[in-house]
Amino acid sequence: MTANRTIALDAMGGDFGPEVVVPGAAISLTRQPQMQFVLFGDEQKIAPVLAKHATLAAKSRIVHTLLAIASDEKPSQAMRRGKGTSMWLAIEAVKNGEANAVVSGGNTGALMAMSKLILRPLPGIERPAIAALWPTIRGECIVLDVGANIGASARQLTDFAIMGAAMARALFHVEKPTVGLLNVGSEETKGADEVKEAHAWLKEHDLPMTYHGFVEGDEIGRNTVDVVVVEGFAGNIALKTAEGTARQVGQYIKDAMGSSALTKLGAVLARGGFKALKERMDPRRVNGGTFLGLNGIAIKSHGGSDALGFASAIDLAYEMSESGLVERLITDLAAHQPAIGANAPN
Amino acid sequence: MTANRTIALDAMGGDFGPEVVVPGAAISLTRQPQMQFVLFGDEQKIAPVLAKHATLAAKSRIVHTLLAIASDEKPSQAMRRGKGTSMWLAIEAVKNGEANAVVSGGNTGALMAMSKLILRPLPGIERPAIAALWPTIRGECIVLDVGANIGASARQLTDFAIMGAAMARALFHVEKPTVGLLNVGSEETKGADEVKEAHAWLKEHDLPMTYHGFVEGDEIGRNTVDVVVVEGFAGNIALKTAEGTARQVGQYIKDAMGSSALTKLGAVLARGGFKALKERMDPRRVNGGTFLGLNGIAIKSHGGSDALGFASAIDLAYEMSESGLVERLITDLAAHQPAIGANAPN
Repeated sequence: MTANRTIALDAMGGDFGPEVVVPGAAISLTRQPQMQFVLFGDEQKIAPVLAKHATLAAKSRIVHTLLAIASDEKPSQAMRRGKGTSMWLAIEAVKNGEANAVVSGGNTGALMAMSKLILRPLPGIERPAIAALWPTIRGECIVLDVGANIGASARQLTDFAIMGAAMARALFHVEKPTVGLLNVGSEETKGADEVKEAHAWLKEHDLPMTYHGFVEGDEIGRNTVDVVVVEGFAGNIALKTAEGTARQVGQYIKDAMGSSALTKLGAVLARGGFKALKERMDPRRVNGGTFLGLNGIAIKSHGGSDALGFASAIDLAYEMSESGLVERLITDLAAHQPAIGANAPN
Repeated sequence: MTANRTIALDAMGGDFGPEVVVPGAAISLTRQPQMQFVLFGDEQKIAPVLAKHATLAAKSRIVHTLLAIASDEKPSQAMRRGKGTSMWLAIEAVKNGEANAVVSGGNTGALMAMSKLILRPLPGIERPAIAALWPTIRGECIVLDVGANIGASARQLTDFAIMGAAMARALFHVEKPTVGLLNVGSEETKGADEVKEAHAWLKEHDLPMTYHGFVEGDEIGRNTVDVVVVEGFAGNIALKTAEGTARQVGQYIKDAMGSSALTKLGAVLARGGFKALKERMDPRRVNGGTFLGLNGIAIKSHGGSDALGFASAIDLAYEMSESGLVERLITDLAAHQPAIGANAPN
């Protein structure tokens, strides 16, 4: 498929605004030349950067606004004065059908709150979740929620499972993705009550997934399942702990290879391997949190990301839009809402 | 200090029983020759292994029992039939003053439940926690709770902070350890209510620690603080996710170094570096979860650990006992119980 896709970009979001957003879009455009962009933000700041990227400029238009949300703003405060900001307008473009997806590197809480207000949750969804792509030894898996909410009821966990499976089918092209509930042990007697309740429900119902049961933290990177479901506090901590551990081991490797003339020589000879290793461990490869459960596609890029990372988030927005994620979610949720309604976990 | 220390060993605990416990004790004894051991379990199985380790045999006695707790037994069931098992007797030896600490590789839930029943929680402690040593780029930090309980109230989190700080003073020999609360962001407005409440309390009170504030998952391995406090569900997931990520990167390294003749040659030349790296990443170096908040020292070894890992858990039991951990805990908790009582978070 090579449909034209329009991506709305919050050009003022993230730590570097247009300086990262514009070159990021330029990189992503080389990979998906049928994209076009609407950039929301301060035209005085966007235009000069855009002028340096002729191909991108030809596919982009700027919607000017001087209003922007600060990264440290409280979501409640951001909401009160949100209207007309670059973030708000970019989300609204999706709502109005002017764009197929929105990407922002701005304040996560504000982006989620505004996306909920403007795009509205899908029928039956109380809480949208943020889904992360997680690099594994065999490829990638999806982990959700990685921080949209603190805590989740059993019912919300089952929603996350259905939504994560829909995303996996869209992204990994597997008919019945495997889904696991993250827990502190694999035995049925272990874990928080809501996790056990969601487990019982997922086991009982015929869903568009292969429900695997509980998985533990060390199984995420082993790719035991395609989709790992967890409430947002533990999910966010797991994600950041994994990022931190990867960087820590990167430091260990540096220390070890710099320890003697021989190890240095060996490392020089093996530099092709180290380059491949570095690329594989590069967190920018899989940047982008997908908001699941909304009437529209919204992607959060890491605020501190550079252009390469921002490009990954745009790639993801494109893929999610191309694969008809929202339509899949609506179909899957509707098919299981009777079951959920009839015998729902709380 | 070179006091004689007696360590009670649950010789039937863990996946391999005496086959790992006995050689593990032999390794640890070479590092701390002033230790002696009481081994609880099936004499028929322990004696032949012990006979292969003459030095250890001279410092050990066996207390025979055929009863043992299975690793997959429910803690409630284990408790009902616990009396007289190797685990029970080993804990009782600490209670009776026959041993300074107990080490078991058995069922975590059963070990915690029995330790609580036999050793009793310290005054004012509702919930003991399991503290893990976490390898960092600069050494080690302490993370608790890594799975004794699901969830924690604000009051329990502040208890964990005080207990973790006492352990850090004992182990790292720092006067005022730095302590952080694990959260999903560093801003004061983020996080679960109980975490925010514990944060407010820790900031206000003068405690034997330097309270740092919130830390995120990626700061554990950076050693931002000496002690990281978190409720047990997220703590356990963080720990296992970090272990899994380290193994995953280990696999990446293998793949990268095996990718061509040149990388293989480089890896051979740099093998000293890879050996150092492997040692630094070896999870057996820091095996052992310390139960904090009890009238006695109990250490949980990983059930699947080998002799080297079990030896680390015994080392830890020795160190905790040598450093007078329980006395420190009692003093620190008593000093702050008035403050806690007067204005306790819930």
